[in-house]
Amino acid sequence: MVSTHFADQLMQAIQAKNAPVCVGIDPVYDRLPADIAEQKDMNDATDSASAIDAILEFSRRVIRIVSPLVPAVKINSAFFERYYSEGVEAYYDLVQEAAELDLLVIGDVKRADIGSSSAPYARAHLANPAFANLDDLVAPDAVTVNPYFGFDALRPFVDVCREEAKGIFALVRTSNESSMEVQGLTLEGGMTVSDRVATLVNQWAGDDGLIGSSGYSCIGAVVSPHDRDETIKLRALMPNCILLVPGYGAQGRTAEDIAPCFKDDGTGALINASRSVLYAYENMEYIERFASEWDRCVEQACKDLIADVRRVVNP
Amino acid sequence: MVSTHFADQLMQAIQAKNAPVCVGIDPVYDRLPADIAEQKDMNDATDSASAIDAILEFSRRVIRIVSPLVPAVKINSAFFERYYSEGVEAYYDLVQEAAELDLLVIGDVKRADIGSSSAPYARAHLANPAFANLDDLVAPDAVTVNPYFGFDALRPFVDVCREEAKGIFALVRTSNESSMEVQGLTLEGGMTVSDRVATLVNQWAGDDGLIGSSGYSCIGAVVSPHDRDETIKLRALMPNCILLVPGYGAQGRTAEDIAPCFKDDGTGALINASRSVLYAYENMEYIERFASEWDRCVEQACKDLIADVRRVVNP
Repeated sequence: MVSTHFADQLMQAIQAKNAPVCVGIDPVYDRLPADIAEQKDMNDATDSASAIDAILEFSRRVIRIVSPLVPAVKINSAFFERYYSEGVEAYYDLVQEAAELDLLVIGDVKRADIGSSSAPYARAHLANPAFANLDDLVAPDAVTVNPYFGFDALRPFVDVCREEAKGIFALVRTSNESSMEVQGLTLEGGMTVSDRVATLVNQWAGDDGLIGSSGYSCIGAVVSPHDRDETIKLRALMPNCILLVPGYGAQGRTAEDIAPCFKDDGTGALINASRSVLYAYENMEYIERFASEWDRCVEQACKDLIADVRRVVNP
Repeated sequence: MVSTHFADQLMQAIQAKNAPVCVGIDPVYDRLPADIAEQKDMNDATDSASAIDAILEFSRRVIRIVSPLVPAVKINSAFFERYYSEGVEAYYDLVQEAAELDLLVIGDVKRADIGSSSAPYARAHLANPAFANLDDLVAPDAVTVNPYFGFDALRPFVDVCREEAKGIFALVRTSNESSMEVQGLTLEGGMTVSDRVATLVNQWAGDDGLIGSSGYSCIGAVVSPHDRDETIKLRALMPNCILLVPGYGAQGRTAEDIAPCFKDDGTGALINASRSVLYAYENMEYIERFASEWDRCVEQACKDLIADVRRVVNP
């Protein structure tokens, strides 16, 4: 039976791979493995077509490596937009390739605008294309969205979630150093802004028809674990939501930090690692084992990540 | 003398046109004038290439009409992204055309991410292209950014502002109905979130070297006037900032509402109108005067907007 709800699909895929883990695709030309950057037609960083060809080739190979291991990839649009229209074309090519590998795809676009402008963003980034000439184009299964506008900015995305079994992850608590400047402000009554946004997101997530048979809504939340007590609190404030958890690895969060993102039954979080997997071939630990075989470094880093996460989810 | 500071350029352009007014380009295929939508190769809404050709043609003609009248246009990326890579190509074509008409161009992209991902967004959307093969590509003079992440998400954009005399407008108070859900939350001490964000944005704007000879920073703020007292307060909280003011016209704000966005000397705000100008040919007032001459409707609506704004700025 094909599931018709994003959260159910994601929960099933996590279970099938026994890995609540997502690999983030944030490719930077200057860090590509030599055997890709040095290929003919891909060796000119000053030529955008050459650079994006190399980035796309690398990203494709990474998702092929990780596709047997993880249920989902998160593709960060910024690193593709950086190459203008050709980069955007490559982004959608990569979404399509990931979908063909039966990966769930999270488009990390962090969009939001007033409703009338969020609607075209939702069509562009989440809805299945409505144009006859683009019938092979595939949109992501879910996207990240920014809550600063309030709910009406997210409504066009939620409409697509309902119509096409898609999902969104609203930013609640982000992983960057300055995140407390706005998210950490204390409200009357003692909650922080991010606590209050968590409460709102959980309300939105609980709206009629949005919760699937897994008990989770197609509206999830981005929560980076900073302080253990805060993470426990945010998990408790959003029982309806799957948490997409950035910050593991290159950004310094450990498996112990991410443990409280899960409910007691071991569900409810998808741990994302981007740079620590993507650039594992820069890490001495893997270089010593696999030398210049960058693909084996990536594969091993992904396996190690999964093992690390499993350790805290099913202790 | 060519100015080397975005706010100075904008202030000079406002003065030269005697119009603190910006036209927003939010083009929707279904609302295009018949003589464009019915042109050969542009008459198929189910074909994305046909639809984006028509949208680009319409947008080009609008900016040619308004270019003698206003200092700036704001191009909303959402309406172009909706057509995938071809739409993004059209967006940059339009930025280029506007720049050639000596308009300042605000790319309404509302981006932000953690710093390492905001950097490619800043390169894509604000910096002059660094690729030899794209030497005719032009980036906007300024972009809109989302403050939910705090300052480190904006820093890569601010770096470009410093290096290339560009600008940003940080969302403070948006025009949509739900905006109070987050922006209107009351903090300990009585300020709202948007008041506090305004204070932060003004601090960021006052950083060393960011304020031009006009007295304004290259960091501005998006402030939609809701309540008169609130608008007065936000103007006072951000003396360093030019306010980009949405909501006029189609979104219901009047000239009286926007008056408090200006300082007493009549400077410090750029009033944006999008749909009320863009789709003036749907408005009976203009249809009665100009029948199906849609370009004359747009021109007159732009002139009326300017006259209306002048009335409250120089009473």
